[in-house]
Amino acid sequence: MAAGLTLYSYFRSSATWRVRIALHLKGLPYRTVPIHLLRDGGEQHATAYQSLNPEGLVPILQHGDVTLTQSLAIMEYLEEVAPTPPLLPTAAADRARVRALALLVACDIHPVNNLRVLQYLQAGLGVADAAKQAWYQHWVHTGLTALEAQLSRWPVGDFCFGNAPTLADCCLIPQVYNARRFGCDLAAYPRINAIDAHCQTLPAFIAAAPDQQPDAA
Amino acid sequence: MAAGLTLYSYFRSSATWRVRIALHLKGLPYRTVPIHLLRDGGEQHATAYQSLNPEGLVPILQHGDVTLTQSLAIMEYLEEVAPTPPLLPTAAADRARVRALALLVACDIHPVNNLRVLQYLQAGLGVADAAKQAWYQHWVHTGLTALEAQLSRWPVGDFCFGNAPTLADCCLIPQVYNARRFGCDLAAYPRINAIDAHCQTLPAFIAAAPDQQPDAA
Repeated sequence: MAAGLTLYSYFRSSATWRVRIALHLKGLPYRTVPIHLLRDGGEQHATAYQSLNPEGLVPILQHGDVTLTQSLAIMEYLEEVAPTPPLLPTAAADRARVRALALLVACDIHPVNNLRVLQYLQAGLGVADAAKQAWYQHWVHTGLTALEAQLSRWPVGDFCFGNAPTLADCCLIPQVYNARRFGCDLAAYPRINAIDAHCQTLPAFIAAAPDQQPDAA
Repeated sequence: MAAGLTLYSYFRSSATWRVRIALHLKGLPYRTVPIHLLRDGGEQHATAYQSLNPEGLVPILQHGDVTLTQSLAIMEYLEEVAPTPPLLPTAAADRARVRALALLVACDIHPVNNLRVLQYLQAGLGVADAAKQAWYQHWVHTGLTALEAQLSRWPVGDFCFGNAPTLADCCLIPQVYNARRFGCDLAAYPRINAIDAHCQTLPAFIAAAPDQQPDAA
């Protein structure tokens, strides 16, 4: 990892937060460029930013002259170029389990509830605040119910998979924070709560949290 | 790949279709178990199915006694246990590019437009057909515009990345089909159209298409 790492980040973006956790777990120093998703209509829509990522989404990770997008692709990249400590187990079936948990969050909960979708519900469809809140909670509960059921099939560990953090934890912890922020009652998910409580004690997770970011409001 | 492969599939599910393409590209024979997503309120909600996948989503791939969920996790698994022909390039930066394209479809287009979200829009929020159609097309155009811009940064090839199919093509082709099915005008995406047209000529993509499935209606 000779070349420097630069993360285009918004403190509250859970997709960026995943990558911050991975970077800290791997002990990789990086420079933060804050991109404010709300100010001036959203700095992610600026031409200069879109020239780096046409999707206009955070995060972007730059590694030397390589520009990387999509949080899961970035974490897989980090796993390949900085394999220690690993964020995926060794056996193919176990790796698939961890990836499936990460994707459950990244494909089936987060995208339906992210900023631009909530903005469309409100501005494009005229959905009232209470119905928007119900939408948010519906997808959180649908996803976390399935995630809790998946976790309950395996022996209890400190993390989503065994006793070392993986990509699944990088995805889960920001999602749990967001769920609480939007008033979801998480009492029905004891395994998820225990994993979250454990991660909250670890330096890498603490350093990656929104309130520790330079752009925290 | 000594153990047998069983795919729980719905002919029109684009997440399942991705996996079917990957299986055919790798020349891996598999048995299909059709799961009808609409009949009887959705066979994916049946208890027996949920015991395999608590999310109640297709696909599931069973490999011997290993039960795999999440299409991208399944394809990464296939890449690890049956690496030839590869569906990811060799260099880490190239692999990240391909994964980012696949995730652009799998995280940023498909989840917002899949069956259960459209059902919620209609039944839960009372969104009329025309507004639902506009929602669908909005996310397709937002995503494909970004994907076309990403593709245009690299040399033209037959596929999303160079001249061999990758996970990105496995995700893109079903998404293009769905976009057309929902009346999206794709004229603004020449690179995507060219890749789609090329893939439509290849046996693996033809065999994986909805109309070739045993449960095709």
